[in-house]
Amino acid sequence: MKLIRFGLPGEEKAGLVTDAGMFDVSAFGEDYGEKFFATNGLTRLAAWFAQHAGECPQVPAGTRLGAPIQRPSKIICIGLNYADHARETNAAIPAEPIVFFKSTTALVGPNDNLVIPRNSEKTDWEVELVVVIGKKATYVEEKDALDYVAGYCLHNDYSERAFQIERGGQWVKGKSCDTFAPLGPWMATKDEIADVNNLRLWLTVNGQKMQDGNTSNFIFNVQYVVSYLSQFMTLLPGDMISTGTPAGVGLGMNPQVYLKAGDVIELGIDGLGTSKQTAVAYK
Amino acid sequence: MKLIRFGLPGEEKAGLVTDAGMFDVSAFGEDYGEKFFATNGLTRLAAWFAQHAGECPQVPAGTRLGAPIQRPSKIICIGLNYADHARETNAAIPAEPIVFFKSTTALVGPNDNLVIPRNSEKTDWEVELVVVIGKKATYVEEKDALDYVAGYCLHNDYSERAFQIERGGQWVKGKSCDTFAPLGPWMATKDEIADVNNLRLWLTVNGQKMQDGNTSNFIFNVQYVVSYLSQFMTLLPGDMISTGTPAGVGLGMNPQVYLKAGDVIELGIDGLGTSKQTAVAYK
Repeated sequence: MKLIRFGLPGEEKAGLVTDAGMFDVSAFGEDYGEKFFATNGLTRLAAWFAQHAGECPQVPAGTRLGAPIQRPSKIICIGLNYADHARETNAAIPAEPIVFFKSTTALVGPNDNLVIPRNSEKTDWEVELVVVIGKKATYVEEKDALDYVAGYCLHNDYSERAFQIERGGQWVKGKSCDTFAPLGPWMATKDEIADVNNLRLWLTVNGQKMQDGNTSNFIFNVQYVVSYLSQFMTLLPGDMISTGTPAGVGLGMNPQVYLKAGDVIELGIDGLGTSKQTAVAYK
Repeated sequence: MKLIRFGLPGEEKAGLVTDAGMFDVSAFGEDYGEKFFATNGLTRLAAWFAQHAGECPQVPAGTRLGAPIQRPSKIICIGLNYADHARETNAAIPAEPIVFFKSTTALVGPNDNLVIPRNSEKTDWEVELVVVIGKKATYVEEKDALDYVAGYCLHNDYSERAFQIERGGQWVKGKSCDTFAPLGPWMATKDEIADVNNLRLWLTVNGQKMQDGNTSNFIFNVQYVVSYLSQFMTLLPGDMISTGTPAGVGLGMNPQVYLKAGDVIELGIDGLGTSKQTAVAYK
C-alpha cells in the first residue's frame, strides 16, 4: 500500500494511492500515527480497503498533501552514511553510525514551501530515504531488523550549515527549523520495495542535477541502522529514521552553493515518488 | 500549583500537591500535555480546583509517581552550561549554548529504577533544572522569554559516557536509553519560583554528596536559553528544556566513577522537591 495524508496543514485526512488514483480512507477512522502502527493498522487497513474501496471518495488531483505519517515521537538522522558524501564534506568515513535528532516541528508536506530561516545564509538540501518503524524495538538483532519496519518515504533533510557547524557543537541546531523536513508524497509499505538497499535517489535545484546516488552505497544499510539504534534507545511505532544523503550537497561544492528565495528543489527515490519545494524568505 | 501524575506506568492520572497533601484531579478530565498547556490549562485547572478541591480524593502516601508531564514533543538539553562542569570535563567554556536532544522514551517517574543499559560501563548522573514550555515559541526575545514558560521540574539527565563520547559523533546516543530521564516529583508553575536563576541543586550517590551547585552559575540563564533555542526551532507547549548540570559528575572525577547495580542516587532543587533512583542491571 501507499499511504498519504491530504488536506490543510493540521487537518490532514488519511488516504491511499493506488493505480486508480488517490482515495480518501478517513472513514477507516484512524490517522497514521503511533497507535495505528502499534495495533497492526496496516493489516487492518488493507482488509478494510478490500471491502470498502468502492465507497472511498477520490481525492482530486492538486489537493495538498501533508507528511504521510502523523508527527512521530522522534526523527532520528544518520550522518555521513554514504562514502561519497563523507568525502565531499572532508569528513572521515565513520566507524559507527553518526546519530542526531531533528525536531518533529520541522515536518511538512512534500510540496510545501521551504522557508529559509531568519539569519540563514547557508540553507542546503539532502535527499534521503526514511525508514518508518512499525513496532516497538529495543535491542533488535540485524537479522530481525526489517520485522520492525513499517515502510519507507522520501525526505529532504534540509540543513542550515552555519547553524549546524559554526554555532557550537551538536548538529541538531541546523536541522530543526520549521519546514526543514518535507516528507512524502507517500509512505510505501515494506512489501512495495523489493530491496531498500538498492534504490536510486536524486535531487535537482532549478532543474540542474545536484545529487544522483543509490542506497547500495550506504556505509550502514537499513538493517544495520535499525539494529544499531535499538542498542541505544527504544524505537516506537511511527518513528522516522532518515538514513543519510549521497554526494552533491551545496556544502560540498567549490565554491559552496546555498538556497535562495525562488529556487525550486525537486527530488525522488525509486518507488517512493517525487516531491518539489519552492524556497521562500521568512516573513 | 504543583502538578503531579500518579499511578502505574502508562496509566498515570493527573494530580496536585498542596500543603494538605496530594490530590487526585483526574475529574478535571485532562492530562498535562501539549493540548493542556496550549489551551490555558493551568489557569483553567486552578479555577476548577478552587471550586472542587473538597471533592478530590487524596492520593495515598507511597503511591508511585510518574513524570509530572505527559510525553513532550521533544526533550532539548543544554550541554556544559555551568563553568565548573565545563572545567571538570576539560571542555572549553562555550561561546553559544550547546544543544542536543534526548529521546522522550527515556522519561520515567522520579523514583523509578535507573536501568543500567546492556554493555554499559560508564553510566553517569547529572542533576538538572528543566524548563517546561507553556506556549508555542518561535523567534522569542530574551525579555519576553519567561512568558513562554509554564514551570519547572527536577531532572536527572543520566548519560552513558562511552556511548556519548567514544562511539562516534553526536551526544544523543549516550542520553537516550530507557529510564535515563527521571522527571519530578512535580512541575512547579512559574509563580512558585521567585528566581529560577538562583536555585540550589544537589545530588548524592549512596549518601555521599557529589554535586552541589546553584543555577546562579549558569553560563546561559533560562531567559537566554529559551530565546536562543527559539531562533533554531519551534518550541511547543509541554516541551522540556534541560538546562545543564553543575560540577561533580562521575566523568569529571580522578579516577572516574560510574554507577553500578545497587547504587542509590538522590537529588533535589530548591522548590522542586527531591527524587531517588536505585540503579539496577538490565535483565
